[in-house]
Amino acid sequence: MEDVDILISNGRILTLDEQDRIIRDGGIAIKDAKIVALGEQAALQSRYHGQRCIDAKGGIVMPGLINAHTHAAMTCFRGMADDMELLAWLNQYIFPAEAKNVNPELAYWGSLLACAEMIRSGTTTFCDMYIFEDETARAAKEAGMRCLLGEVLFDFPSPNAKSPAEALAYTRRLIQKWTGDPLVGIAVEPHALYTCGESLLLDAKALSREYGIPLAIHLLESKGELQILNEKGIKATQYLDRLGLLDPDFIAFHGVYLNDDDMAVFADRGCKVVHNPESNMKLASGIAPVTAMIRKGIPVGLGTDGCASNNNLDLFQEMDTAAKLGKFALLDPTAMSARTVLQMATCRGADVLGMGNLIGTLKTGMKADLIIIDTEKPHLTPLYHAYSHLVYAANGSDVDTVLINGRIVMENRRLLTIDEGKVMMEVRRIADKIRDSLGMTAP
Amino acid sequence: MEDVDILISNGRILTLDEQDRIIRDGGIAIKDAKIVALGEQAALQSRYHGQRCIDAKGGIVMPGLINAHTHAAMTCFRGMADDMELLAWLNQYIFPAEAKNVNPELAYWGSLLACAEMIRSGTTTFCDMYIFEDETARAAKEAGMRCLLGEVLFDFPSPNAKSPAEALAYTRRLIQKWTGDPLVGIAVEPHALYTCGESLLLDAKALSREYGIPLAIHLLESKGELQILNEKGIKATQYLDRLGLLDPDFIAFHGVYLNDDDMAVFADRGCKVVHNPESNMKLASGIAPVTAMIRKGIPVGLGTDGCASNNNLDLFQEMDTAAKLGKFALLDPTAMSARTVLQMATCRGADVLGMGNLIGTLKTGMKADLIIIDTEKPHLTPLYHAYSHLVYAANGSDVDTVLINGRIVMENRRLLTIDEGKVMMEVRRIADKIRDSLGMTAP
Repeated sequence: MEDVDILISNGRILTLDEQDRIIRDGGIAIKDAKIVALGEQAALQSRYHGQRCIDAKGGIVMPGLINAHTHAAMTCFRGMADDMELLAWLNQYIFPAEAKNVNPELAYWGSLLACAEMIRSGTTTFCDMYIFEDETARAAKEAGMRCLLGEVLFDFPSPNAKSPAEALAYTRRLIQKWTGDPLVGIAVEPHALYTCGESLLLDAKALSREYGIPLAIHLLESKGELQILNEKGIKATQYLDRLGLLDPDFIAFHGVYLNDDDMAVFADRGCKVVHNPESNMKLASGIAPVTAMIRKGIPVGLGTDGCASNNNLDLFQEMDTAAKLGKFALLDPTAMSARTVLQMATCRGADVLGMGNLIGTLKTGMKADLIIIDTEKPHLTPLYHAYSHLVYAANGSDVDTVLINGRIVMENRRLLTIDEGKVMMEVRRIADKIRDSLGMTAP
Repeated sequence: MEDVDILISNGRILTLDEQDRIIRDGGIAIKDAKIVALGEQAALQSRYHGQRCIDAKGGIVMPGLINAHTHAAMTCFRGMADDMELLAWLNQYIFPAEAKNVNPELAYWGSLLACAEMIRSGTTTFCDMYIFEDETARAAKEAGMRCLLGEVLFDFPSPNAKSPAEALAYTRRLIQKWTGDPLVGIAVEPHALYTCGESLLLDAKALSREYGIPLAIHLLESKGELQILNEKGIKATQYLDRLGLLDPDFIAFHGVYLNDDDMAVFADRGCKVVHNPESNMKLASGIAPVTAMIRKGIPVGLGTDGCASNNNLDLFQEMDTAAKLGKFALLDPTAMSARTVLQMATCRGADVLGMGNLIGTLKTGMKADLIIIDTEKPHLTPLYHAYSHLVYAANGSDVDTVLINGRIVMENRRLLTIDEGKVMMEVRRIADKIRDSLGMTAP
């Protein structure tokens, strides 16, 4: 018998590997943060002895979900203002609230609250863009979550940087501080083409190239953005290509208004896209042409966007919406299958973040980032197809147990790494201040 | 001190009444299945003594949700086939599975499973159409759920009726059996214009008129249906109006392809519509013009449709989708506000089912159909606006306690009226038979 750290048994294992293997009555052996074996549980149990044993109780065991675009700390603004015109929403609520309230404390507690919510709903990795990202890194590290994150870069000042140069310098310090960390990775993250000029984009790309790390940016999210760029005479894809930004390290958030020519360039250069269907619907931005992107071979991940515009971080609901919106977009019920969106939230998301060799599928040698779904529930009964249930019937509350990098971070719905009572109390205190700063009354 | 059956305290009470009153630190006194008082808890506690006391622990107390269109027993087919062309889905899966498997046993257990799922996700009333509806009535009665239901009427035989005349006679027996029941109401329910000819429609309306009960029908759900009607030379609304079906007792499920002229007639005749956004998206049917309907004064409720096409009965997720789809449909983020969809799922849904004087709002004299939401959760923190949280952040699993007709049917997420372990076991057994009947392999 070989000793392993953790032995999972009695699961229906969805590997999401190239063969799309599903193992009934399966088990997984985990050692040193990695999957060392996976297969029929009878075979595993005769070969491995687990220091810790986890009984999946017949539930679904699958790769942890990957939220490829969010702004974690914005949980503090969750539901502060909805159902408004974009400019009114930004100018009356989001911008003043941010200018008056965003500081390291908000970034830390807001991010930790996001980590609690994400773990509870089965997300094990997230890609983040916001302000004071070192605090988000600290929160993720404490929560035991995997992440790729970067300080937002603008041409104008942020609460954390008086100038683009300061924000770039902060990004460089993030890179130097977190290089080699098993959980936290850093990206260079200019905000968008309508907030970053050529000089900042070139500096950002130079930094990304220097360290061989991703460059991520909001791109072609709304008609309003398209109009601003049109007025400046900028054709986004050609412009980015001319500046040398389009390569396999390039991640575009949204891409709602990518056209066929743009997609051809993206596919050729190996660029990635993150789809955020719920945010795009709620802000009435439009529908990203995701089916076309996937057909052209562009890796597409799935994101929730931040809680100011969604308003939760539940990727199960996001998968459901992605599938339904994809069908509606083409008026074709065969478009955007459960399998396709499940891949977007796992293996394709991993590819998008440059982590496809580490996470996103369950197989030997991969990091042990996985979740167990409790299927002993009325709304998950009966079970004909596991993929269908996960996308069309489940929600984040069905996640029972979560492992990240071989560590159990939630067990039987109890968070092991975060004192969530304390975190909720701190965020409520911050929300009181935000409310006061905007002259809002208590709910 | 006045004795009452139940006294609820420490809740944030959303009345959904005409003034949209929200009572912080509120309480509700319940006696003989009705709300006898509602207001500040301090005032209530000094006046009423509850035989039972429920502490809402600072959570949200609101009217129970109303699922205005479903096919409860179809939980047995949940996720059996997805991502398919409508005709292939119907002809290869749904129709053969129904022909071979639908019997009173399936109708009973499938409906009881649906009741378990609906109560767990905060639904207290549902409107149902399917086969062997007496079994659905029996299940609802046992579960303690309120419902309006009717046997589906076709020109062709069903597993329960060799002819339309038999199905009408069955409907008449349902009416006679359940008249006066505090929970179960009966409607006359022809399936659709492409499955029911003029003679059946007229007989159905005669029965509806005889007893003064609603007549409900699927109407203009898909482009395919529109095409069939066009080929027959039928303009749906004019045709129904000529047959005398359009009056305040008329309920149309879906109404995706109602045009401006149709809506004007509907508004004039007092007809009702039930919106099913998730089913319409998943089957790629289209978007119902709900904002236009509401502007024209047509009462619009919200439904999940059956589990073969959605695939759950969670009205919280349905509200979320309704709001987002409504915004996307008009590319206007101010369209279809959280308040509007919350009304669709409560007071407007009650109006649609002809129960607006009984349920759908919390006020003195109304039936005590209400739910308590546990807001002490990361994804519901912080709280700026309760409506926003309910529509954009919550899901059915956040419902803690459910009362229907003054009876506690779920408390602290424990179902009190249904042995859900037994129900899931029975439905799994039925699903095994369904799988065998279609030659499907076990998952």
